Amino acid sequence: MSLIVHKYGGTSMGSVERIQNVARRVAKWHAAGHQVVVVPSAMSGETNRLIGLAKEIQPQPDGRELDMLASTGEQASSALLAMALLAQGVAARSYTGWQVPVRTDSAYTKARIESIDDERLRAELDLGRVVIVTGFQGIDDLGNITTLGRGGSDTSAVAVAAALQADECLIYTDVDGVYTTDPRVVPEARRMSVVSFEEMLEMASLGSKVLQIRSVEFAGKYRVPVRVLSSLTDPMMPLEEEMTSGTLITFEEDQKMEAAVVSGIAFSRDEAKITLLAVPDTPGVAYSILGPVAAANIDVDMIVQNQSVRGTTDFSFTVNRNDFVRALDLLKDNVAQAVGAAEVVADDKVCKVSIVGIGMRSHVGVASLMFRTLSEEGINIQMISTSEIKTSVVISDKYMELAVRALHKAFGLDQDKSAA
Amino acid sequence: MSLIVHKYGGTSMGSVERIQNVARRVAKWHAAGHQVVVVPSAMSGETNRLIGLAKEIQPQPDGRELDMLASTGEQASSALLAMALLAQGVAARSYTGWQVPVRTDSAYTKARIESIDDERLRAELDLGRVVIVTGFQGIDDLGNITTLGRGGSDTSAVAVAAALQADECLIYTDVDGVYTTDPRVVPEARRMSVVSFEEMLEMASLGSKVLQIRSVEFAGKYRVPVRVLSSLTDPMMPLEEEMTSGTLITFEEDQKMEAAVVSGIAFSRDEAKITLLAVPDTPGVAYSILGPVAAANIDVDMIVQNQSVRGTTDFSFTVNRNDFVRALDLLKDNVAQAVGAAEVVADDKVCKVSIVGIGMRSHVGVASLMFRTLSEEGINIQMISTSEIKTSVVISDKYMELAVRALHKAFGLDQDKSAA
Repeated sequence: MSLIVHKYGGTSMGSVERIQNVARRVAKWHAAGHQVVVVPSAMSGETNRLIGLAKEIQPQPDGRELDMLASTGEQASSALLAMALLAQGVAARSYTGWQVPVRTDSAYTKARIESIDDERLRAELDLGRVVIVTGFQGIDDLGNITTLGRGGSDTSAVAVAAALQADECLIYTDVDGVYTTDPRVVPEARRMSVVSFEEMLEMASLGSKVLQIRSVEFAGKYRVPVRVLSSLTDPMMPLEEEMTSGTLITFEEDQKMEAAVVSGIAFSRDEAKITLLAVPDTPGVAYSILGPVAAANIDVDMIVQNQSVRGTTDFSFTVNRNDFVRALDLLKDNVAQAVGAAEVVADDKVCKVSIVGIGMRSHVGVASLMFRTLSEEGINIQMISTSEIKTSVVISDKYMELAVRALHKAFGLDQDKSAA
Repeated sequence: MSLIVHKYGGTSMGSVERIQNVARRVAKWHAAGHQVVVVPSAMSGETNRLIGLAKEIQPQPDGRELDMLASTGEQASSALLAMALLAQGVAARSYTGWQVPVRTDSAYTKARIESIDDERLRAELDLGRVVIVTGFQGIDDLGNITTLGRGGSDTSAVAVAAALQADECLIYTDVDGVYTTDPRVVPEARRMSVVSFEEMLEMASLGSKVLQIRSVEFAGKYRVPVRVLSSLTDPMMPLEEEMTSGTLITFEEDQKMEAAVVSGIAFSRDEAKITLLAVPDTPGVAYSILGPVAAANIDVDMIVQNQSVRGTTDFSFTVNRNDFVRALDLLKDNVAQAVGAAEVVADDKVCKVSIVGIGMRSHVGVASLMFRTLSEEGINIQMISTSEIKTSVVISDKYMELAVRALHKAFGLDQDKSAA
């Protein structure tokens, strides 16, 4: 007997019929003798509906009240799932975040989980019940309802799995696993049966939207084995088959023996680049530029500063395309003159493409294969940034698909047609 | 400075615009220096939507899970109202039943309030905030969410007013007060500016749907002054005018000096009558008949047993028309033979009409005026039941409007046209 946490996304919970399918799948696991905790998202569309109402009333909704409002979506879907299980003869009970309780800090709309009390959950499991825990939400020290931000139900599920020391946390979603890159861009993209935690972390932070990045961090911190798998399969498919489907995020490097040097290609189109030319190369200049940007609540992603030539340097960084105009105005109006930059040049027609792989640690020449591949396709690299297990480049966004496909092929990630 | 509790029904909270109107009205009271607690219902249609989803999944939904689900409607509307107040520059915070907490028993879907902690509410009021408390719900000893049943927000509001010893509890609704009878049946019906608690209790129990009867009981138990008034008026109408509008439910009989002997005519069409003929008149026969009916969870309203003639008696009672078939089957299949009844006769085309008035206590001849009036209209009385301040009759339902109009006129309740 194992203790398993299931998480279902909004699409999987999107209608009465789908909720009944989720219940069938959960009932199958329960009937096989497993203890099951289920973390559902709100029914698809519900969170957007609620936030839409809020914004009609208060364009910048109060955080506390927005969490009070938005948390109702998961409470409703959890109760409906409990009913669906009961209707199928399976003992089940739903719990809100505050009932468990899931304790968080007080950062409304983006709270962080601090602890989860496992007593009540264990008591219910010991009674043979399926326990449903509302995703996305918790309670702060003062008893206020908090939410974890978009995709927060992933984090809830992993945190519940950590608190219960679950054997596995299954994230059911509308894709059937983690791919070497987005199959919509590269049809030859291959589903990985195993991916290392660190690779998954890079993939999530680089724009692969399969899992909320905080849920991956949580999995890493508490070493929770997480499996991403499809909720669109037949709920009555054989359990043995389901248990090995999807992609397992692992912490055991030996499971990755067969791994390629590069595991996947991540990319993000929503990028914009800003460069301050001929900035005097004096101490504190980076802070003088990025301090005001951070103060305006604009996230900066890549930062590149070139070698100083004759006492000046060029300073470049990327921001999300949505923040581009605001960031550019800020720099032109105030910062550029203050730091003595000769000119500000900017481009919001760029994208970021990254290769990710734990094997890069011990293999030389990986980055240079990347650069050579892009060069052979005639793609100019505008910025480069590296970490231990990834290399990212900024290029013109018109070359994005071309670059991703070329790199996917160059690093041998294409699907083995003969095996398909 | 007074402490005032406002309650708004689902229609008043039915759209973003209406919620903003509620906020304007509340803000007006707050600006005048009053401490205000607001108890909103769910947005109109929301509770039905949620219960509809539940019944699709589980035709007889589990009580605990249904309460978990249904309570989200008031949580959402409360948060939206808080936002609307904040958007208008009024400090406000919403609280769920469990956050207050509002403690109830564990009778899911029809829980009873046991106590309300006033500490948190007072602290918020002392900070100058408008406090919004979700109607309809509470928490039991084990931390489960409970709901109070249909119309439960009225009871929530009165209970909160009782806990805070509020100066008045204002029930804003889509009618502008309590009428001598339903104006849709008798256009001459008159709004009462004051009605006694006991009369209101009889009116509510006899089918006047202005207030949930339990809220009236609560008001009586804790002597909470309750005013029923319209939410459809201009929210910015002068406060002095609003404070005396609607109908005040009072406990001070001297305020009713001017009262008529009969204050109002109540009626209910959803009645059905069952009679067991020639039942042996032996001890325990009433229990033998009504015990199985109660066990089947069928509410019995009026009960009449005639004088015994030659050792047998006729035993009649009324049930809600929805329960008629079930009750009749139960009696025909089992009970009638067991108690030795000669025959079971039944009629689901009956209604109940009642005259209510605290003045009946001290005035003789009130019931006989009722009977004479009905006789003059050629209406046959099938059953009669009386209490200290009301007399009810069961008649054929085709005469209902006629009976109500005739009685309304006979007891001098018609609107004074010259004063209109």
